[in-house]
Amino acid sequence: MPEKPPADSVNRRGFLTAAGLAGAGLAMHASAAEAATPDPLITEVQDWQRHLGDGVDKRPYGSPSQFEKNVIRRNVPWLTASTESSVNFTPLHELDGIITPSGLCFERHHSGVAEIDPAKHRLMINGLVEKPLVFTMDDIKRMPRTSRINFLECSANSGMEWRGAQLNGCQFTHGMIHNVMYTGVPLKALLDEAGLRPSAKWLMLEGGDASGMNRSLPIEKGLGDVLFAFAMNGEALRPEQGYPLRAVIPGWEGSLWIKWLRRIEVGDQAWQTREETAKYTDLLADGRARKHTFIMDAKSVVTNPSPQAPLKYRGRNVLSGFAWSGRGTIKRVDVSLDGGRNWQMARIDGPVLDKSLTRFYVDFDWNGGEMLIQSRAIDSTGYVQPTRDELRKIRGVNSSYHNNGIQTWLVRGNGDTENVELG
Amino acid sequence: MPEKPPADSVNRRGFLTAAGLAGAGLAMHASAAEAATPDPLITEVQDWQRHLGDGVDKRPYGSPSQFEKNVIRRNVPWLTASTESSVNFTPLHELDGIITPSGLCFERHHSGVAEIDPAKHRLMINGLVEKPLVFTMDDIKRMPRTSRINFLECSANSGMEWRGAQLNGCQFTHGMIHNVMYTGVPLKALLDEAGLRPSAKWLMLEGGDASGMNRSLPIEKGLGDVLFAFAMNGEALRPEQGYPLRAVIPGWEGSLWIKWLRRIEVGDQAWQTREETAKYTDLLADGRARKHTFIMDAKSVVTNPSPQAPLKYRGRNVLSGFAWSGRGTIKRVDVSLDGGRNWQMARIDGPVLDKSLTRFYVDFDWNGGEMLIQSRAIDSTGYVQPTRDELRKIRGVNSSYHNNGIQTWLVRGNGDTENVELG
Repeated sequence: MPEKPPADSVNRRGFLTAAGLAGAGLAMHASAAEAATPDPLITEVQDWQRHLGDGVDKRPYGSPSQFEKNVIRRNVPWLTASTESSVNFTPLHELDGIITPSGLCFERHHSGVAEIDPAKHRLMINGLVEKPLVFTMDDIKRMPRTSRINFLECSANSGMEWRGAQLNGCQFTHGMIHNVMYTGVPLKALLDEAGLRPSAKWLMLEGGDASGMNRSLPIEKGLGDVLFAFAMNGEALRPEQGYPLRAVIPGWEGSLWIKWLRRIEVGDQAWQTREETAKYTDLLADGRARKHTFIMDAKSVVTNPSPQAPLKYRGRNVLSGFAWSGRGTIKRVDVSLDGGRNWQMARIDGPVLDKSLTRFYVDFDWNGGEMLIQSRAIDSTGYVQPTRDELRKIRGVNSSYHNNGIQTWLVRGNGDTENVELG
Repeated sequence: MPEKPPADSVNRRGFLTAAGLAGAGLAMHASAAEAATPDPLITEVQDWQRHLGDGVDKRPYGSPSQFEKNVIRRNVPWLTASTESSVNFTPLHELDGIITPSGLCFERHHSGVAEIDPAKHRLMINGLVEKPLVFTMDDIKRMPRTSRINFLECSANSGMEWRGAQLNGCQFTHGMIHNVMYTGVPLKALLDEAGLRPSAKWLMLEGGDASGMNRSLPIEKGLGDVLFAFAMNGEALRPEQGYPLRAVIPGWEGSLWIKWLRRIEVGDQAWQTREETAKYTDLLADGRARKHTFIMDAKSVVTNPSPQAPLKYRGRNVLSGFAWSGRGTIKRVDVSLDGGRNWQMARIDGPVLDKSLTRFYVDFDWNGGEMLIQSRAIDSTGYVQPTRDELRKIRGVNSSYHNNGIQTWLVRGNGDTENVELG
């Protein structure tokens, strides 16, 4: 039997014309042959079949359809005093697969987007090295390079949720993340050319924007999987992602991924820069601060349904989301529809890559009942994504960084979805 | 010893300031500490360090740097009578990694770009089915979906080269290819809902553009790995790639990947449409035609250096390219620098995926001598990419489709690179 449409949000025609089809799986279709009221759109010739469209000289660099104009990064005006030292958010609820389109990768700047002429850009290595060096972009592009797909998550992602449900949409609660294929030169190769002195223990990475954004990085990580990238998703970095050169620090918090890279200083201790003392530390209940909390622990979020993407139909539906871990790969994702009482294993789809977003789905039928939707990630180390209360018990409620707790969405009977706090 | 700069095309400063540094590997750098003439750019404060850049409200959907404005799709005006039934080309020499940015995926249209309102779009299944069906886009998005990265190559890619070197740039010789992550619903799931009759042997896929572009597809492939995709590289399909729905026929020629999909007809034989009789067949020397030559055989191309991306420096350099096969994965890529007399194994980088572009590199030192650069792909079936003469011996010279022969670039002593024919 076709489902009764829930309230306003349902495509009524779709259900009514399905009358007479057997089985819930078919209730979604209007059948051209059997429907009492055939779909007029299938027999009408549409405008786009009547005339020629744009030729191949019209879009040297393409952009999305006019019908996707709401699929954009969004900022929250009240969040910061200026837009130049601020953030906007990736529309996760509009994405699929695991690649974030370059035009939709969230932005976080400290002095706005530097517009750098690559011909005039230089990267310097100085400090505890045998031979200080200056590289042009051409120099860097002549060195052996590699590509990999990694997530970049701001450590403040989900930070507003630390004290309870605040923001109504996964774009805003979880949208300070992106996942792209980066191409660049291993930092180790650059350091090898300069020659590290024995006392070298820390690196300071400095940006060429007006803020001179900088962070300290332990030398072990710098000699590991760090890339200095000049390309993302196949093409040159975008200006807002650090064109012409940015750091890729797989699995570690986003503020370390210095953009518009102009300098590496090699030292014997951490620099204690503003961005690792006044900011990007976790103030505990007893007044001490967790510092250098670099690694982003396993986390996940259901992107659909979510407040910006409510359920529109009863019957067949696709629940979808991402999981990721800064410590390895995603081994499993569990989903609950009843606020964590019962869990089912989600279907993981597509490539499961190290320190990358991983897509999961739950294909389910919705009878119009209320749901409390949650997801939890389990990574290759066996770590299980905690509840927020489990995190608060250890870290208190002063800090908003490194919130990887479980998110809850309440789906109401009419399909509307809200951000709620279950603890 | 630093290399003597070759002719005009060399960054003279880079070499001169390197004087005094030991080893060819360092000859590329200007050393801030040791150079006789320190690089003035590293001590000057640049414009972009002096003022705030754009805030996070300025680029709701981002685009490339102004300094990348030449990285675009290009068409060849003399190639076709109109731009609406024509082609443009992916700038392969500007790409890295294996993802093609959606804005740079080559276009091939028969009546220009249909601009479809997804709310009014329908997909119909009719013919030899138990139950003809009509799907809305919402219907399709409620079915279980999957994502995968596949190449799409037009069967006419490299077609102009069939009779010898014609086009001066890999964008034009090989640029009718792209490689993206597609997300969609398996065609099998759609056919299962309609219910195939026992006599069903072929499918006809029809586009909703003004040309009603259509092709026949054997039912075995349709029930295999074919997707009906609504997303590419994470976001909705681009209009020029078939928004809101296109076919993904992994490993098979691009003209089968019908865009703006509006109808599947199920039949008991192939349709013999214009696009598989007048076009997209291979006319042999004896007057017979190879038809339904669906699978794209293993192929590769060196993208850098190439005519649009000449060598600029002696010493250290990166040779790069793509390889792909419609029959599986790439097992090995060989590169020759002397026109095929000697071969070396290229370094394969990044994920090696089924029916996907695969990136390869050769890190080499250039002494300024002439080179005849070639690459050959070997796929997981053991198939070795042939020379053009080997192909011509079997297929004659009438047809321009399915040219997967080895490409040759001549690199001259000044770094300039040309398309040449070695057979």
